[in-house]
Amino acid sequence: MPPNHAFPEVEKQGVYDAIYKRRDVRGQFLPDPIPDEMLHKVLDAAHHAGSVGFMQPWSFVVVRSREVKQRVKNLFEQANEQAVKVFEGERRALYSRLKLEGILESPVNICVTCDPTRHGPHVLGRHTNRETDIYSTCCAIQNLWLAARAEGIGMGWVSIFDPKELQRVLVIPEYVIPVAYLCMGYVSEFLSQPELEAAGWLPRLPLKEVIFYEQWGKKDQQ
Amino acid sequence: MPPNHAFPEVEKQGVYDAIYKRRDVRGQFLPDPIPDEMLHKVLDAAHHAGSVGFMQPWSFVVVRSREVKQRVKNLFEQANEQAVKVFEGERRALYSRLKLEGILESPVNICVTCDPTRHGPHVLGRHTNRETDIYSTCCAIQNLWLAARAEGIGMGWVSIFDPKELQRVLVIPEYVIPVAYLCMGYVSEFLSQPELEAAGWLPRLPLKEVIFYEQWGKKDQQ
Repeated sequence: MPPNHAFPEVEKQGVYDAIYKRRDVRGQFLPDPIPDEMLHKVLDAAHHAGSVGFMQPWSFVVVRSREVKQRVKNLFEQANEQAVKVFEGERRALYSRLKLEGILESPVNICVTCDPTRHGPHVLGRHTNRETDIYSTCCAIQNLWLAARAEGIGMGWVSIFDPKELQRVLVIPEYVIPVAYLCMGYVSEFLSQPELEAAGWLPRLPLKEVIFYEQWGKKDQQ
Repeated sequence: MPPNHAFPEVEKQGVYDAIYKRRDVRGQFLPDPIPDEMLHKVLDAAHHAGSVGFMQPWSFVVVRSREVKQRVKNLFEQANEQAVKVFEGERRALYSRLKLEGILESPVNICVTCDPTRHGPHVLGRHTNRETDIYSTCCAIQNLWLAARAEGIGMGWVSIFDPKELQRVLVIPEYVIPVAYLCMGYVSEFLSQPELEAAGWLPRLPLKEVIFYEQWGKKDQQ
């Protein structure tokens, strides 16, 4: 047996609960503020993601102002008018019924950015793939999502924006990439199933459909 | 007070321990195999990441064959010969001393891919940013990393490859993106600090350096 570095069962349960009970929250936000100390606690968890060449390319723009949120909400509405048009018939009707963001209802919004220039042009491990800094930023976002879930805080990722317009509203420099716009707050409930799954938008794929062995397309281990 | 959906303290501790004690493992892998049941358990955790439009764009190519690993290792060595050249002097010497992968030593390698065509061309939430499917895939990778840590399994992300060559070796179709190549296995120890931090490659940024309020660059909340 290898040395046992596994967590005690109840701590493992915490990790799996965070993973399985995390939701992309849109409709259940409560107005109660998130205390600064709590916000820093979950942002510090995000900040401890691994990153390519330890570059820590992320920044967090915390938005609490009603006015800024309203400007962001307007961007969402503009972009969503276009987005709905790619769907037709029943699919469009279903799309239109879905709640896709909680920008104004959530007490805190956070734009997570990636600065590809941080620490200069040469980053260990980014030579062959320039996008690994964005990958690191997404890992930080997942840390944030899971830490927030453990603290009873819901988070929703809104991606229906023109990124250039979002940069303009938040005064983000052109060379910095706005990777995610997140809505955060305490919630009335965490739904038992992802909303798009419950609404019949798409089913959960069986795990075995997404695992291959030794090469793409090979479904058995022999 | 909002309704309390926070986890019990010991379960929260599990989440924070996974986040803070996770390491990008390169040099501490043990040859002990990871049982199938355990591998599926942590892959299922990855599979329960959120995804844009619930598209679940990821697949996992599990590599255990010594021969396939050796071919991937050769790709790393080719790419690394080029990568080292961007650094000069002391920095190059330090780079050359770093262990950057554990491809052969780890019992399981996993290539995590993103299929942008899964479920057709129109994905809810991807209209304004085509890359959100890759973002989702990275969130799945972070789930995998944290679940593995809780189980006492180390994971290292190797990004020094020509992605086209990696696709060729793993027979991954051209339209599918190989996002990450991961090495996994039980470990002799989890280091107390990230290796690049301990080696003096780059320091950890203070959290307050990466937080802004209401707009980019604004460091106070007033």
